[in-house]
Amino acid sequence: MGEKIKELAEKIAQRLDEKKFEEIKEYLEALYPSEFAELAEYLTLEQVVELVKLLPDDENIALFLSELNLDLQSGIMSALGKEKASDILEEMDADDAADFLGEIAPQESRELLDLMPKEEAEEIEELLSYKENTAGSIMTSDFVAFPENLTAEEAIKKIRELSPEAEMIYYVYIVDKREKLVGVISLRDLIVANPDAKISEIMEENVVSVLDTEDQETAAKIIADYDFLALPVVNNKGILVGMITVDDIIDVMENEVTEDIHKMVGSSEIYEDKLIKASSLTRAKARLSWLFICMIGGIFAGSVVRFYSDILQNVVALAFFIPVIIDMGGNVGTQSSTITVRALATGQLRIDELGRNIWAETKVGLLIGLITGIALSVVALIWQNDFLLGIAIGLSLCITLVVAAIIGTLLPLIFTKIKVDPAIASGPLITTIIDMGGLLIYFSLGSLLFKYFG
Amino acid sequence: MGEKIKELAEKIAQRLDEKKFEEIKEYLEALYPSEFAELAEYLTLEQVVELVKLLPDDENIALFLSELNLDLQSGIMSALGKEKASDILEEMDADDAADFLGEIAPQESRELLDLMPKEEAEEIEELLSYKENTAGSIMTSDFVAFPENLTAEEAIKKIRELSPEAEMIYYVYIVDKREKLVGVISLRDLIVANPDAKISEIMEENVVSVLDTEDQETAAKIIADYDFLALPVVNNKGILVGMITVDDIIDVMENEVTEDIHKMVGSSEIYEDKLIKASSLTRAKARLSWLFICMIGGIFAGSVVRFYSDILQNVVALAFFIPVIIDMGGNVGTQSSTITVRALATGQLRIDELGRNIWAETKVGLLIGLITGIALSVVALIWQNDFLLGIAIGLSLCITLVVAAIIGTLLPLIFTKIKVDPAIASGPLITTIIDMGGLLIYFSLGSLLFKYFG
Repeated sequence: MGEKIKELAEKIAQRLDEKKFEEIKEYLEALYPSEFAELAEYLTLEQVVELVKLLPDDENIALFLSELNLDLQSGIMSALGKEKASDILEEMDADDAADFLGEIAPQESRELLDLMPKEEAEEIEELLSYKENTAGSIMTSDFVAFPENLTAEEAIKKIRELSPEAEMIYYVYIVDKREKLVGVISLRDLIVANPDAKISEIMEENVVSVLDTEDQETAAKIIADYDFLALPVVNNKGILVGMITVDDIIDVMENEVTEDIHKMVGSSEIYEDKLIKASSLTRAKARLSWLFICMIGGIFAGSVVRFYSDILQNVVALAFFIPVIIDMGGNVGTQSSTITVRALATGQLRIDELGRNIWAETKVGLLIGLITGIALSVVALIWQNDFLLGIAIGLSLCITLVVAAIIGTLLPLIFTKIKVDPAIASGPLITTIIDMGGLLIYFSLGSLLFKYFG
Repeated sequence: MGEKIKELAEKIAQRLDEKKFEEIKEYLEALYPSEFAELAEYLTLEQVVELVKLLPDDENIALFLSELNLDLQSGIMSALGKEKASDILEEMDADDAADFLGEIAPQESRELLDLMPKEEAEEIEELLSYKENTAGSIMTSDFVAFPENLTAEEAIKKIRELSPEAEMIYYVYIVDKREKLVGVISLRDLIVANPDAKISEIMEENVVSVLDTEDQETAAKIIADYDFLALPVVNNKGILVGMITVDDIIDVMENEVTEDIHKMVGSSEIYEDKLIKASSLTRAKARLSWLFICMIGGIFAGSVVRFYSDILQNVVALAFFIPVIIDMGGNVGTQSSTITVRALATGQLRIDELGRNIWAETKVGLLIGLITGIALSVVALIWQNDFLLGIAIGLSLCITLVVAAIIGTLLPLIFTKIKVDPAIASGPLITTIIDMGGLLIYFSLGSLLFKYFG
């Protein structure tokens, strides 16, 4: 997209000025919803509203609006008026409509719902009742569900009728008289099946589903593992209540990763994926709490230095290596913890492989520690021409890095065990802990060596 | 999955010992390919091979094998013998077969290809010829493509026939006489269309496609943006050569994120997603290069301390705050760079928003710097009872954090401009640069203050 859309935006802005609406309609017809969303970024709200009015019908408007960000959506809806807004919401996929209504002021949301047909309003209200980040909160109620006694041919005929309403018709869910989910069949299997075959005979009875109250990440993991295009959602009675489609899961995955990455560097989880668009004050607030913890850690690390200030006054060169100890320890610790956190998130590392992984990382730490420790010893020796200092710094670095690797691996695993998000165990927390540890190792070893051999 | 599969593995291992094969067949029938893959993790290679032999046919074996990791795949293939292996490869989706053949020894790969029917072997060889990480390398040649003159009814009939071979039948691509891609139609649109309508009339002519030589990330971005279930791949002549399905894109997204995260902490890109399973030596090697850069940076930062050793000898308390300056600067820099890198990767931040974002982050840095700087001044004042030291440390921290936020934001943007992966601009590189800068600010300011007011 990129350049092409930017040029189109300029062209459309010009045509709007010239009131050449027919030409604009042609441009719009060739656009995909996501392209329209990008286009809108280059235009003013007034211009976007004008474009929306040129779209052929409410169904089209609903399709294009679903891709826009919330600010733009509500700007357009206000400009169009409540009557029109509720018509558009009716045409939207139920999950997109619920997303919109969940974010605007409760009173406005209520007014719009009241303008909609009762049945559809109730559907959306049910979706709105789910807690954020649950499977229920991202599901749609526009799925296709049939009773068991239909034949393949009848099912295809019914799909044809339901197609305009349903969000996705490639999976058909089979329910019993109590609306309980009992099977699934793909449209693919339906069209190759004998037309007279009962769907109860050809359906897959071993349906994988997710509970509506479960975390959306669980749903994402199932869809990614099983290569599904959609996943049925059931309530605690086994009744089919919704469906999650793969495109929504891709969004969930992106947001969860962004959230994890932000957490890893100690930027609080509250603002999640929207952080980059937030105000400077919000962005600062999101980061301050961990930075204060980091500051307290830094002051404690300073106390370690202070505790050894006598030796520091005698061997001032010891201070020259404080940065390298802190840097290396922090980096190795962050590496170990980040790799562990990511492996846990992708399922490459299971919690029962704990022991083996810590041992592997300990060896990594030792290897890195030996190589860099020897290198740093040599540098210290040449730079300061002090054999004892060389030994002290090299040995301290090596021990620090082993400790860093172990703590970096252990902490996320412990956090997972006690059901705290392991992502917060990397970044600031790790660096802070390891800085103190590293300086303690360095100064105690240094003072010991200089006391007995210096 | 988890516990359930582990229990099943124990049960199956027992039944294998007791040679109760019929019972095992029943268990296997109820399993999804991804569940079989998890099951295999709890069993020995010999046991898995026995299970594979109990599967009903080659098609089933191909389906289950596709989900296993490469080591297990090649272990099973060797155990089954070359003839059987080539039969199974024939049944696999072309992209999965190519993945397998691309990873084993070239000679073995050659032998297996020679045992396959010529046409299918050629198809796979073509897939194998694409460079890693290109769209061509992840596409499949098992797509459905029709000429323009078919009617909707004829198209559905043909889909029915092709269904067993095709990987995904929900999108049908339309090609002209020269095999050029000219349109696309979904199975959904086909089944609701008038049976006699020509597909050339009902197809979408504005097809979004990706070039076979383009980066796989481009394909992932398109599928994520457009909510497609599959994306057609064309060569530089516009000829349709393959299709990328959404499930493969999910894998690409996971791997790319893992790669990015590893790069962010300075763990080299070579070993990517497999890092956690690699040997300790490999893991250490992947991390050493950046750690050496970090060490050199740390030594330079040490030189800054050394340059100011005179003042340090007089005011030893200055050393107590080295850790907090390094920690805070490194953390704020890492936060800024990580947030920027992630926003660039998800497309939330465009490169032309550069100026605005740097200004926003500068304000964030200033806010954080002021708040923590004042707090640290107070701490220093109370702790050391030295007004001048309090001013020096507080002011230095504030300036350092502003600089950290600016460098942390600027560096990934510069890297993107000069077409270097911005992910390597966070982590070790940032901390190293900012440490030096922070200490320089701290000591120069400190020595200045103590010189004139001390």
